[in-house]
Amino acid sequence: MYQGLIEKGKEIFIVQSAASVLNWDMETKMPPKGIALRSQQLAVVARVAHRMITDPEIGNLLDRIEGYPEYDTLDGIQKRNVELTRKAYNEFTKLPEELVAETERQRAITVDTWKKAKAAKDFGTLKPELEKLVELRREAGEILMEVKQTATPYDALIDHFEPWITAETIAGIFDELKEGLISIMRKCLGADKQPDSSILRRRVPVDAQRRISESLAEFLGYDVKSDEAGGRIDETEHPFTSGYYDDVRITTHYYENRPMSSLFSVLHEAGHALYDQNLPGDWMFQPVGNASSYGIHESQSRFVENILGRSYEFWSYYLPTLNEFTGNIFSDVDLDDFVLAVNQVEPSKIRVEADEITYGLHIILRFEMERLLFAGSIGVDELPDIWNRKYKDYLGVEIENDSEGVMQDIHWAGGYYGYFPTYALGNIYSGQILAAMERDLPNWKAQIAQGSFKDVKRWLVKNIHSCGALYDPQDLIREVTGQEIDVRPYLSYLDEKYSKLYGY
Amino acid sequence: MYQGLIEKGKEIFIVQSAASVLNWDMETKMPPKGIALRSQQLAVVARVAHRMITDPEIGNLLDRIEGYPEYDTLDGIQKRNVELTRKAYNEFTKLPEELVAETERQRAITVDTWKKAKAAKDFGTLKPELEKLVELRREAGEILMEVKQTATPYDALIDHFEPWITAETIAGIFDELKEGLISIMRKCLGADKQPDSSILRRRVPVDAQRRISESLAEFLGYDVKSDEAGGRIDETEHPFTSGYYDDVRITTHYYENRPMSSLFSVLHEAGHALYDQNLPGDWMFQPVGNASSYGIHESQSRFVENILGRSYEFWSYYLPTLNEFTGNIFSDVDLDDFVLAVNQVEPSKIRVEADEITYGLHIILRFEMERLLFAGSIGVDELPDIWNRKYKDYLGVEIENDSEGVMQDIHWAGGYYGYFPTYALGNIYSGQILAAMERDLPNWKAQIAQGSFKDVKRWLVKNIHSCGALYDPQDLIREVTGQEIDVRPYLSYLDEKYSKLYGY
Repeated sequence: MYQGLIEKGKEIFIVQSAASVLNWDMETKMPPKGIALRSQQLAVVARVAHRMITDPEIGNLLDRIEGYPEYDTLDGIQKRNVELTRKAYNEFTKLPEELVAETERQRAITVDTWKKAKAAKDFGTLKPELEKLVELRREAGEILMEVKQTATPYDALIDHFEPWITAETIAGIFDELKEGLISIMRKCLGADKQPDSSILRRRVPVDAQRRISESLAEFLGYDVKSDEAGGRIDETEHPFTSGYYDDVRITTHYYENRPMSSLFSVLHEAGHALYDQNLPGDWMFQPVGNASSYGIHESQSRFVENILGRSYEFWSYYLPTLNEFTGNIFSDVDLDDFVLAVNQVEPSKIRVEADEITYGLHIILRFEMERLLFAGSIGVDELPDIWNRKYKDYLGVEIENDSEGVMQDIHWAGGYYGYFPTYALGNIYSGQILAAMERDLPNWKAQIAQGSFKDVKRWLVKNIHSCGALYDPQDLIREVTGQEIDVRPYLSYLDEKYSKLYGY
Repeated sequence: MYQGLIEKGKEIFIVQSAASVLNWDMETKMPPKGIALRSQQLAVVARVAHRMITDPEIGNLLDRIEGYPEYDTLDGIQKRNVELTRKAYNEFTKLPEELVAETERQRAITVDTWKKAKAAKDFGTLKPELEKLVELRREAGEILMEVKQTATPYDALIDHFEPWITAETIAGIFDELKEGLISIMRKCLGADKQPDSSILRRRVPVDAQRRISESLAEFLGYDVKSDEAGGRIDETEHPFTSGYYDDVRITTHYYENRPMSSLFSVLHEAGHALYDQNLPGDWMFQPVGNASSYGIHESQSRFVENILGRSYEFWSYYLPTLNEFTGNIFSDVDLDDFVLAVNQVEPSKIRVEADEITYGLHIILRFEMERLLFAGSIGVDELPDIWNRKYKDYLGVEIENDSEGVMQDIHWAGGYYGYFPTYALGNIYSGQILAAMERDLPNWKAQIAQGSFKDVKRWLVKNIHSCGALYDPQDLIREVTGQEIDVRPYLSYLDEKYSKLYGY
């Protein structure tokens, strides 16, 4: 029975990995006229995957495993596969095939409309498509809240990204995070010592930035060049990672006058890619051979981007390399000044360009808006105004148009409601993971300063990546750190780092 | 019933178009390590398509349409859809799902092995994989010969590319073609006037060649640049066209010291792409909304590459443009000398670099070998020797290693047996199509000389592209030209052109 279940599941993971190639192509290479055809392809592939996931034979197999003698012969990993299959089966059998296909179709159309609306700074064009998509997701959330026994449709949507956490729990954690971030932000903004971030606006030609991307990939052991490469780097409006095991691709966006934008995007996305590439090969095509959650995934990207990539030690190693690639345009800059500049705390409008301290505030306000939207307390048409007001309230910035405001991210156009909170959860996890890693690798910073990422990578692979989805995120954090989810290690890390940087 | 049949068929075409994106990505962008996963993706997608095509519900619907009153209410196009669906259904229901999936898997592995074996000039590595693939195709041919009522397995394989033609018929046509080609070849090689083809080995940097590709695409109205583009140009070892309607992509291969190689590849592939893009939109996702055959497809690519692209009139228009893109490296060359050079008749080793006259000989020998291979008269291990002997006999050239010999093309590694003859059939058709077009557009050459492809394109769209698969290839040729398949118009076109060029 068990082997039959695994065989049936394998096909599902293969189809989903094929769909991710179609999605990647849609964002990177597809000729613009292909969008309608691609929407139909994605809809049909989603329908095919849905039919496979909801195949009654899977239900039969599950029924004939659970509670029967065979179950007791399974090891822990196998039991986890049964558990994850049951969860997915129950959830998906409740979702009508037509709703799934229609959502895929609407998602492709809305993303395409978002691109045009963003270019035209015209939320009006996006609004009707976004409304349709929100309705489709709400419908799914309402169906799923019964299965998942959640209190609200939004909780059911969150559970897809971060299993077994509720909006209420997140709200509590985020309140603590908000308080901590605002406190550090104020100390930084009020400090005597202030960064000169104008140095980061020096022009670096796109070609040089492409070579920098490749050198960062090499440093991280994310192979995009050799005959055995399992990755590649392309260019999109919004950077992302996509793929499965041996074919995991990242994208970035090059701005000539903001070279650090792509540099940190590449570190971030490569952090994701390393997780996907280092899931245990033996578990490929099994439920347990996936990431634990989006939040854990984000902990890995944030770890590489911020904890490593914005550290003094990384730059003591990498600044000379950066100078090589850029014709020494930073050779007049002190290492201390450079590190302070890449860590400048400055409330801003754009999430993906936000610093480590204010970033959480961008997330918290999106989470609050999603929660209101799915509670039915606000409508899609109110999003721009609320967005602008919250940016004013939390970050003190004035949003001038919806392209830099509510339309800045692809997520809502892509139907990813319940996704945003995982970004901040990832930061919180990364702080706990750092504390655990430092116990095992007290000299990790010295290694980074010497240009070696090897031991850190090995530790992450061993403790996080190679666990796949064996544990739910809260359980994984407990396994790795010995603690429950806790904001304090992350806030301590920030406070220690920023007090040094700003001398407060 | 009929509408139900069309709805079920639609999903099949969508899945197949998605598979073509996965194939394109495999050849162009996929990281090398992704090959095993991609093989599995293609196998599963093929299995899914196979299940759809062989869904008994399609058989039921067909049974309840054919011979019932509803059938008489259908128009000619609808009846053709029923006919084509019946043909595909009968063929595919005979092919075991496992054989189809295994063939897809073996095809991906063999193509990958072919790449490496070709780079290493080592047929030994390729041989075992090729043997497995030939066995799988033979197995399919044996099953299909019953359904299609063909005399041999090879005929059944040919029928997939060129419906309702047999190896015996082709052999007869090819004998006539061979005689004609050899006669013209001898006249050219014996002429006093001989081209100076050294001018075509002047270096053109790849970047300039990329701009040339884009300008050729623009001339043909194959849009790869605008916001409404439905095409794109990438780089692969062996050029190809792939896609469906609004997303049809071509590839080329740039050689700095042979700029004409890519130029004619782009014309050739864009000729294919125009056909696929101009199939009638109303018939999208229906059997009738496909090309008539591979041979007819090839007639379109050969028409653009040779009849148009190697004409005096095209170069009287395009040579100044070529000079612009290349820093005037051809400004010392007379138009007459240039046109003679791009039409040089010279027996050579590589099919895709062959001239218009010897090209057919490359095809005829491949056809003869395939026929022997599937008759069981020769084995895969004998291919290299026979290949080399035939090249010596027909073309008088000495093959030095299997990379320039039997491994030069991707087709056999890709499992495309029965495909090669369609290339020469395409040439024969293109001669007949040219004769028909000249009756309607007597001044087409003058238009090309003025840089306008519009009327020619409109004629091709109206007479060929917009017919989709409404007619089988031999019927389409009869519709368009009023004649049966006939080698003479093609040989007349060649003789007239080459006697002028070489002054024989």
